[in-house]
Amino acid sequence: MSYQAPVKDMLFCMAELAALDEVAKIPGFEDFGVETAQAVLEECAKFNEGVIAPLNFEGDKNPSFFKGGKVTTTPGFKEAYRQFSEGGWQGLQHPADHGGQGAPKTIAAACGEMINSANLSFALCPLLTDGAIEALLTAGSDELKRVYLPKMVSGEWTGSMNLTEPQAGSDLSLVRTRAEPQGDGTYKIFGTKIFITWGEHDVADNIVHLVLARVAGAPEGVKGISLFVAPKFMVGADGSLGARNDVHCVSIEHKLGIKASPTAVLQYGDHGGAIGYLVGEENRGLEYMFIMMNAARYGVGVQGIALAERAYQKAVQYAKDRVQSRPVDGSLPGAAPIIHHPDVKRMLMTMRALTEGCRAMASVAAAAYDAAHAHPDADVRKQNQAFYEFLVPLVKGYSTEMSLEVTSLGVQVHGGMGFIEETGAAQYYRDAKILTIYEGTTAIQANDLVGRKTARDGGATARAIAAQIAATEARLSDRSSAAARSMLKHLKAAREAWLEAVGFVASNAKGNPNAVFAGSVPYLMLAGNLVAGWQMARALMAAEDKAAASADLPFMNAKITTARFYAEHILSRTGALRDAIVEGGESANAMALESF
Amino acid sequence: MSYQAPVKDMLFCMAELAALDEVAKIPGFEDFGVETAQAVLEECAKFNEGVIAPLNFEGDKNPSFFKGGKVTTTPGFKEAYRQFSEGGWQGLQHPADHGGQGAPKTIAAACGEMINSANLSFALCPLLTDGAIEALLTAGSDELKRVYLPKMVSGEWTGSMNLTEPQAGSDLSLVRTRAEPQGDGTYKIFGTKIFITWGEHDVADNIVHLVLARVAGAPEGVKGISLFVAPKFMVGADGSLGARNDVHCVSIEHKLGIKASPTAVLQYGDHGGAIGYLVGEENRGLEYMFIMMNAARYGVGVQGIALAERAYQKAVQYAKDRVQSRPVDGSLPGAAPIIHHPDVKRMLMTMRALTEGCRAMASVAAAAYDAAHAHPDADVRKQNQAFYEFLVPLVKGYSTEMSLEVTSLGVQVHGGMGFIEETGAAQYYRDAKILTIYEGTTAIQANDLVGRKTARDGGATARAIAAQIAATEARLSDRSSAAARSMLKHLKAAREAWLEAVGFVASNAKGNPNAVFAGSVPYLMLAGNLVAGWQMARALMAAEDKAAASADLPFMNAKITTARFYAEHILSRTGALRDAIVEGGESANAMALESF
Repeated sequence: MSYQAPVKDMLFCMAELAALDEVAKIPGFEDFGVETAQAVLEECAKFNEGVIAPLNFEGDKNPSFFKGGKVTTTPGFKEAYRQFSEGGWQGLQHPADHGGQGAPKTIAAACGEMINSANLSFALCPLLTDGAIEALLTAGSDELKRVYLPKMVSGEWTGSMNLTEPQAGSDLSLVRTRAEPQGDGTYKIFGTKIFITWGEHDVADNIVHLVLARVAGAPEGVKGISLFVAPKFMVGADGSLGARNDVHCVSIEHKLGIKASPTAVLQYGDHGGAIGYLVGEENRGLEYMFIMMNAARYGVGVQGIALAERAYQKAVQYAKDRVQSRPVDGSLPGAAPIIHHPDVKRMLMTMRALTEGCRAMASVAAAAYDAAHAHPDADVRKQNQAFYEFLVPLVKGYSTEMSLEVTSLGVQVHGGMGFIEETGAAQYYRDAKILTIYEGTTAIQANDLVGRKTARDGGATARAIAAQIAATEARLSDRSSAAARSMLKHLKAAREAWLEAVGFVASNAKGNPNAVFAGSVPYLMLAGNLVAGWQMARALMAAEDKAAASADLPFMNAKITTARFYAEHILSRTGALRDAIVEGGESANAMALESF
Repeated sequence: MSYQAPVKDMLFCMAELAALDEVAKIPGFEDFGVETAQAVLEECAKFNEGVIAPLNFEGDKNPSFFKGGKVTTTPGFKEAYRQFSEGGWQGLQHPADHGGQGAPKTIAAACGEMINSANLSFALCPLLTDGAIEALLTAGSDELKRVYLPKMVSGEWTGSMNLTEPQAGSDLSLVRTRAEPQGDGTYKIFGTKIFITWGEHDVADNIVHLVLARVAGAPEGVKGISLFVAPKFMVGADGSLGARNDVHCVSIEHKLGIKASPTAVLQYGDHGGAIGYLVGEENRGLEYMFIMMNAARYGVGVQGIALAERAYQKAVQYAKDRVQSRPVDGSLPGAAPIIHHPDVKRMLMTMRALTEGCRAMASVAAAAYDAAHAHPDADVRKQNQAFYEFLVPLVKGYSTEMSLEVTSLGVQVHGGMGFIEETGAAQYYRDAKILTIYEGTTAIQANDLVGRKTARDGGATARAIAAQIAATEARLSDRSSAAARSMLKHLKAAREAWLEAVGFVASNAKGNPNAVFAGSVPYLMLAGNLVAGWQMARALMAAEDKAAASADLPFMNAKITTARFYAEHILSRTGALRDAIVEGGESANAMALESF
């Protein structure tokens, strides 16, 4: 089997770190305790391992292609999508009102990891649909919700997010697509959108495009952008499909990775105007889009974890199979499987520790999301919202950056075979590179973290998290195991490094923004490394506490080892990041532009 | 122009760091002072910029292909190779006795960087020929030298290195290809060799394969391996080409990168046996191969620098052209070229600092090679040999690992466009991944560094280098500039971190090899980071000293800024590496194999 979902570790994260039992006390989530979670995860694992994962390599070899205005997806995708839809997986995390199952994000995110491990290109389709559903739930009129949501939640129709234009990427203030009011409440949309993931395909009957455009006369910049629904096929009042709307795919991109996922250039209005329906109010499009992007950003972070997990599994398999050279300690008489070599172990442990650390962080963030959205107590909601919003750029930025390292190590473990496409390890390396770019590059996440999430409140949220970490250190200091002592040392050093960085950011954001923003990505990497390490510290203690009574002692021991490895090999990187942030701002900005 | 050779920086490295004027005092190198170097580099730049670089993207789009036993290279390669050969570039660093120009490595290595920047796939052909020439010079009989060397040095024929077999990659003791003595001094060779770079092609009339094989009755393991020459076409006493030898390409690989470089599976002896000529003595093949591999390893390190340089240039160009978002310091009223954004500057500076640091290290290593091989004083030769041998795994391992980071940042600077193959940035990211694998993976380099180069002499060579670094710190401490003070702080901390690591390796290599070898790659990365940083410290001082009187003040200022950036953002990483080496050995080895 090419992929085995890490159900055990996912359940451990939910139960021991994300406190799923607390989530299950929130009204609406009563049915989603650990037992349900286990049942859902096992069913999800079966589907993704058996149906979706086997199509991953095929999608890379036979990407979706464009011909005569149409996109044909990789053989097998259409049927797999039908099964995905019929299995109800699209609706897992969406409200029961609209046909979903209303599962908490704490559980749904783990299912999201599975489908992304199984097949990143395929998984992008439901991920974009999720984003579009989110946008309609947030700001759509009752009529839009009634017409579109049931079919999207059921997976009969898919969604897409149309933001980027050739001149407007990270900077959406430059969007030029225009929307002309028709007097009947509809608009006609004209313009070109690029990089539209699953913007055209053949796996579902309709595509619901969410499009950013400017209404004639709107203000310049980000405050003049509105959000519209423009379906591929017009929809009758009874939900039946009508005429083709004037939005057409004119080409798809030839990409480094995620080749089976069609990335479309969409042309709006070349034949009279694409009919669009305003979502919410005019000129508030970016605000709605950000809500949807926060969900998508979290989802992309999970993609990083997913890809790292799959690369890890493949590397472990190869390391157990490939026989080469005698162990350095002489423990075996001849050439041995390379997993016996310490450097191969170090690589695999690095892959594993990064993956588990990020998974733990994402799981905790998901639980915060659930509490922020559904907890009956407003204070609890508010507190969790702040925590969740702080974590989103870490989940997105740190998990995707780490996936570059993990997938690169995955190729490395394979040696020369890794460089041969037939082996399959190289695909993960190529696929991963999009993750640090789309839904906001790492720098965009870092700017958000530095600006909105740290400088704006003078570092208060950051320091509150540091205080929680200090509390974890206090618990660690009561323990005598070598693993706990090592974790304590490195966690403390990392937290102190971070507090210096927080102080620097809070004090200098106004006065020396160039220095602060030159350190924004190192700041994100430091915070992500620390928060993931903090969760590994909690995991270490939980595993120590459970080990004696656990039916699965090897799992608990492996968790302790992995946490200790994280401390010594990963948390230890934070000192360099501190230096780069606190000392390196001047040298990062000093070069004369003409000297580059 | 898609590539501009960094002639200024290369000359700076040679003149200010590698002491080319001292190299030019060595008998045989008298004609190769700075003026000659400049003339050679400028001519070389013109050729590579104009002829070789434009074929790079084409080679990726239209890779060499295999059909009917023959390999057809990318359109344009054959003509470009003719010009390369006619220009005398293959012979630059080879002895005048065999038709070469006898240039020191200090100069030739810079030319090597240029052709690899221009086109890594193309450059591999001459790089492998260099290796084969090296092997024949080292161990070939006079007859073999007479027949083969002139045509190889002129570039009329190319060379290849045939080591790997399906079961024998890093572990050459497992080589099974066999050689049967024919009684007439020749051998017949039977077996399968894989991953043979430029093992079959159409750019030259003959290919001289250097092949590892076992003579019947030879001892098991590495002490029973011999080296043979097996030409593609037999060669008459007059040098004329005769019958086709029984070595045939049966397929080429579909790879992640360097797609224009044909990677052949070669079948020996399917039609009666390939005729081979013994190089040197029986059973000493691996020893000869290692001589040739040391040259090739240095060359692959230069490939890392070369690819990093090209990725940097492309990223700078894009960052100057692409307009997006307003600068955070409000210095411009609207959207600006992204090079104005601090994080983009930080990425470009990281790329630049890593590239320049590794170039400086490689340049100094090349000068040590020249002194080690040609200096009249035996003590000087010996001292330089030890220094060079210590540096080879750093040049290979650190420069190639850094090229992964640099080419990844290169894609990142391009944002979404970087993920589109048409842009070209992704090619460097794909090409780079082979560099940490072939000619010995990073782990193989690290084992060499830890075992042969550090543990064997109890850390003496390592500590001698540390003492030289301390002397550089003493010179820095006389300076008051902010750049020098910052460099001093970080260089000192990095050297001290390294000394701890050296102590750990020297004390534990015998008693706890698993812990030591789990830290071997971090040890290599620490040493490489430090030695490159040490050269940047020397560069900083040279630039400060020259700045006032220099005709090129901007260059000197840029060097100072880059060196300071290296100190604050790169040297600062060494603390984490120290922790991983000194503290992380146990956790890297602790996981039960069945728990992976």
